[in-house]
Amino acid sequence: MSRVLYELAAADPDRRFSPFCWRIRLALEHKGLAFEGRPWRFTETEALAFSGSDKVPVLIEDGRPIAESSVIAAHLDAAYPDRPSLFGGAAGQALTRFHVAWTDQVLHLALVPLLLLPIHRHLDDDDRAYFRRSREARFGKPLEAVCPDPEAQLAVLRKTLAPVRAVLRAQPFLGGDAPLYADHAVMGAFLWARGVGGPDLLEPDDPVEAWRRRMIERLGEGSRALASG
Amino acid sequence: MSRVLYELAAADPDRRFSPFCWRIRLALEHKGLAFEGRPWRFTETEALAFSGSDKVPVLIEDGRPIAESSVIAAHLDAAYPDRPSLFGGAAGQALTRFHVAWTDQVLHLALVPLLLLPIHRHLDDDDRAYFRRSREARFGKPLEAVCPDPEAQLAVLRKTLAPVRAVLRAQPFLGGDAPLYADHAVMGAFLWARGVGGPDLLEPDDPVEAWRRRMIERLGEGSRALASG
Repeated sequence: MSRVLYELAAADPDRRFSPFCWRIRLALEHKGLAFEGRPWRFTETEALAFSGSDKVPVLIEDGRPIAESSVIAAHLDAAYPDRPSLFGGAAGQALTRFHVAWTDQVLHLALVPLLLLPIHRHLDDDDRAYFRRSREARFGKPLEAVCPDPEAQLAVLRKTLAPVRAVLRAQPFLGGDAPLYADHAVMGAFLWARGVGGPDLLEPDDPVEAWRRRMIERLGEGSRALASG
Repeated sequence: MSRVLYELAAADPDRRFSPFCWRIRLALEHKGLAFEGRPWRFTETEALAFSGSDKVPVLIEDGRPIAESSVIAAHLDAAYPDRPSLFGGAAGQALTRFHVAWTDQVLHLALVPLLLLPIHRHLDDDDRAYFRRSREARFGKPLEAVCPDPEAQLAVLRKTLAPVRAVLRAQPFLGGDAPLYADHAVMGAFLWARGVGGPDLLEPDDPVEAWRRRMIERLGEGSRALASG
């Protein structure tokens, strides 16, 4: 089977940084499914039009496109039940929605102010103009004014991670003894930061940092190069 | 088997309000295990000394005490595997730690300023003095000064619930089609508020409010009376 994952890329095509694309890359590696990761940029909507989606991740399996990270993850687990589960069963899948929702609605919100300028710096010219325009509209101010006090925002981020930290004090992964999709969802945020050379987010003695390193060590060979900051 | 659950109570012994005790009451009902709920008050440490714990919940099964809500829940699921699972399997149990940690460290923090005065109002005299002293030390100010703007705190609480709301837009319970311990942990917070006649916390059209009502409808008969505000 041919399998292609469209992933958000910076000017350097090996700089992949979308947290939603990273989730699916980690999920594909988790399932042991070979794939080609194809770089895609914000403004390349025509290149993606065939899929019916205007944003990534989009996974193409034998020509059939599947869009939206949660839909792709559910598809992968249902279509390949003999490979390691992303959710650990039906209850795990239902419970994982909370980890994903918290990542999307809480963790990302605490992180994005720290990443706007690093992202902008790494985009190609067309994407850079699009990114500034769309994000300045969203935040209602110039990119440079969104995070006037990065140290304070870093403190917010670390405080936001309190419930993740509590879990990782009790067990090595959010999924227990080994990662599940819940880990991949949260880890996507850290690979987003890493992909654009963002600041160090965690104290060295933070249990979340120890977990982040464990997750980095588990990256497939092809992903290690893409994730380098 | 004799089974007694020590539960925090107000001056009125039928007014039970500890969110941690409620989790275990809901868990016992979930497992279909009969028990006697015994009222206990903050300052009755001697009555609990035999258990080795100085706070509730404590569950006594045939004279054997088990303390701390997460320990009790894990015990109930392991000891009664033929009854409905609280976690939906090992992965579900590992994943549920996050719901519990988030409830303890984020949801409760957003809720407690709204409940300090209602709790204080309902305690008996000994507990009232203890409660004021210990909470004023924790907050560093008089009880009456902790929440100068309840409306603003209510807005904080509702915003805090965003990831729960997102899940409940997609499925009827945090556990999926039926409640799991993750639901009981979050519901404990709402029964805490209800138990002390706290303010209405949610808008009528909030998916979290619809879920809260579904959870109330599922309360066992003995619990309904105890939970009335």
